[in-house]
Amino acid sequence: MALIVEKFGGTSVANPEKIKAVAERVLASRRQGHRMVVVLSAMAGETNRFVALAQEMQALPDPREMDVLLATGEQVTVALFAMAVKEMGFDSVSLLGDQVKIHTDALHTRARITGIDTALIEQHLDQGRVVVVAGFQGVTDQGDITTLGRGGSDTTAVALAAALKADSCEIFTDVEGVYTTDPNICASARKVDRISYDEMLELASLGAKVLDIRSVGIAKRYKVPVQVRSTFTNTEGTWVVEEDKDMETNPVSGVTYSKNEARITVSKVPDIPGTAARFFDPISKEGIVVDMIIQNTRDGQLTDMTFTVPRADYKRAMSILEKTAAEIGAEGVNGSENITKVSIVGVGMRNHPGIATTMFKVLAGEGINILMISTSEIKVSCVIEEKYTELAVRALHHAFGLDGAPQAEG
Amino acid sequence: MALIVEKFGGTSVANPEKIKAVAERVLASRRQGHRMVVVLSAMAGETNRFVALAQEMQALPDPREMDVLLATGEQVTVALFAMAVKEMGFDSVSLLGDQVKIHTDALHTRARITGIDTALIEQHLDQGRVVVVAGFQGVTDQGDITTLGRGGSDTTAVALAAALKADSCEIFTDVEGVYTTDPNICASARKVDRISYDEMLELASLGAKVLDIRSVGIAKRYKVPVQVRSTFTNTEGTWVVEEDKDMETNPVSGVTYSKNEARITVSKVPDIPGTAARFFDPISKEGIVVDMIIQNTRDGQLTDMTFTVPRADYKRAMSILEKTAAEIGAEGVNGSENITKVSIVGVGMRNHPGIATTMFKVLAGEGINILMISTSEIKVSCVIEEKYTELAVRALHHAFGLDGAPQAEG
Repeated sequence: MALIVEKFGGTSVANPEKIKAVAERVLASRRQGHRMVVVLSAMAGETNRFVALAQEMQALPDPREMDVLLATGEQVTVALFAMAVKEMGFDSVSLLGDQVKIHTDALHTRARITGIDTALIEQHLDQGRVVVVAGFQGVTDQGDITTLGRGGSDTTAVALAAALKADSCEIFTDVEGVYTTDPNICASARKVDRISYDEMLELASLGAKVLDIRSVGIAKRYKVPVQVRSTFTNTEGTWVVEEDKDMETNPVSGVTYSKNEARITVSKVPDIPGTAARFFDPISKEGIVVDMIIQNTRDGQLTDMTFTVPRADYKRAMSILEKTAAEIGAEGVNGSENITKVSIVGVGMRNHPGIATTMFKVLAGEGINILMISTSEIKVSCVIEEKYTELAVRALHHAFGLDGAPQAEG
Repeated sequence: MALIVEKFGGTSVANPEKIKAVAERVLASRRQGHRMVVVLSAMAGETNRFVALAQEMQALPDPREMDVLLATGEQVTVALFAMAVKEMGFDSVSLLGDQVKIHTDALHTRARITGIDTALIEQHLDQGRVVVVAGFQGVTDQGDITTLGRGGSDTTAVALAAALKADSCEIFTDVEGVYTTDPNICASARKVDRISYDEMLELASLGAKVLDIRSVGIAKRYKVPVQVRSTFTNTEGTWVVEEDKDMETNPVSGVTYSKNEARITVSKVPDIPGTAARFFDPISKEGIVVDMIIQNTRDGQLTDMTFTVPRADYKRAMSILEKTAAEIGAEGVNGSENITKVSIVGVGMRNHPGIATTMFKVLAGEGINILMISTSEIKVSCVIEEKYTELAVRALHHAFGLDGAPQAEG
């Protein structure tokens, strides 16, 4: 008998009918004798409703109170879910983040899990109950409610699976699994059966929305086998697991893109030690994450600094940088929101030299200018103009042999 | 500087605008330097919404999970309220029942407060914060969320005021205070300025909806001065306080009625010791509260037993009693839901003999038949046919000199 953690997102529990359907699905495993822990998100739309309510009260809603408000979303679904399971004849109990306890730091609205007590969950499992845990939420040492930020329920599920030493963690979502690229812009995208943690980390960080990156990091560290699959079909999904030999056959496992970036260039920066730190310190203090950084020295004394930031933080970053630029005597700051980062990912890259070159050639062949490049051991990313996104993705998907039958299933 | 507990019900916090208006109101006191603790209910309508949701999941929703669900209602309002206060320039913090902690027994959906920790609230008050406490909810020793049942937020407020040794507890509602009778059926009803705990207890238990009876009991025990007043005006409300000489001038302080009762008669019960216990034991085990009980001995061996139960429990009580009647050899069970209990209440009754007789005469004068009578030191209640309710109330209100100017304010 396995211990299985199953996580269902907001669209899977969007109304009473869907909650009942999900309960049936969980009980199918429970009936086989498995020990079941279910992690739920808030009903789809609730978070947006709460954010709107909060903004009616306070221009910049207080983060501590925002978490108190947001946490009610999952509290509603876990209570309803436990009722549904009981109605179907199985015992069940709901547990909130502060009941479990899921310990976090005090960074409200984007807290990080620091530890999980498993005793209470195990006690309920031992008594045959389906344990329903509120995703996305935790509690500080002071007893304040926290939330984990976007994708937080994935993190809750995988962290719980790790803490409970679960046999697997199944992330149910509205897609069939992880695809070689976005099926919405590339009809020949194929579902991947197995993918390594490292590849998934690159895909998650590059904008594939299927699994939150923090959850993949936890899965990798604790070797939790994660299956991403659809709530609405019985098709086997994509297993995110440890790397093995088979995975190295193909140089590229997937093509991904992110439109969530903006590019900023600070020109003619006096090139003296400590300048980069002076630049990035005020931005990072504001919680803005800088991604690709390129520094071009113009001559001995001046340099251009180009980097990307999340598009949502673009305006804020620009205003901070304009102040900093003036202070340190740089010439100016300019940037663009109309860019896309296109990437190829694959553990097989390590054994196949020349993959980056192929990528550059493919893009050049389509007349697409490359604005920035960054690489890791298993990834090559190119920043291009946003308007070329679909063209670039399709060309790369085809060139690296990823095309399957159009709209293929399984 | 006083410590004041202010409680606002669901209609007072029904939407963001109303929440802001209430926050302004609380800050008026805060600006005078008072230490403010605010107790809030869920937005009006939320509880009904949750009950409907729960019933979609489970025919008889699990009480533990029902409490998890219901408690989110107050959680939403306290978070929004704290945001509103912060936006207005004062510090504020929301606290849930399990954060405070408000300890209760484990009787889910109708738990009783067993104790309140005041340390955390006092700590926040010392730091100048407006402390916003979720009404209606508590936590068991096992860490399960409980709710206190109908009127629970009143109880939270008064119990908090008692535990904190507050100078007063103000219950804001949608009426101006306690009236001599229901203004909806008697145009000459007047607002009462001051009323004793004992009178309020009788009024609350007799169906006046303005203040939950448990909260009055706590107020009396801990001598908490309670003011019932309107959220929507600045008029002074009704003070519920310790009895004093002035209150004894008038024999009757108010006329009240309850349509929430039903009458049941079990006829020809074998009159042997222990019969009454055998009758009432199965009903009370089902949580049904029996009120007025009259026993008429027919002859040496048979007796008729008549009593009232809450109308909502009538059908359930009937089916239990029919079984019991058959077991102990009673002739039959019959009853009626079309009754009303009309009552006069006043601490002055103690010094004014003949008040009950006057009441019977007034009802007789209107041609109203009295079905049952019960009295306490400061109350006389008569059960009559429901159709006479308005007639009886108006006649008694007039006869005991309670009439004021029609629709009088203040």
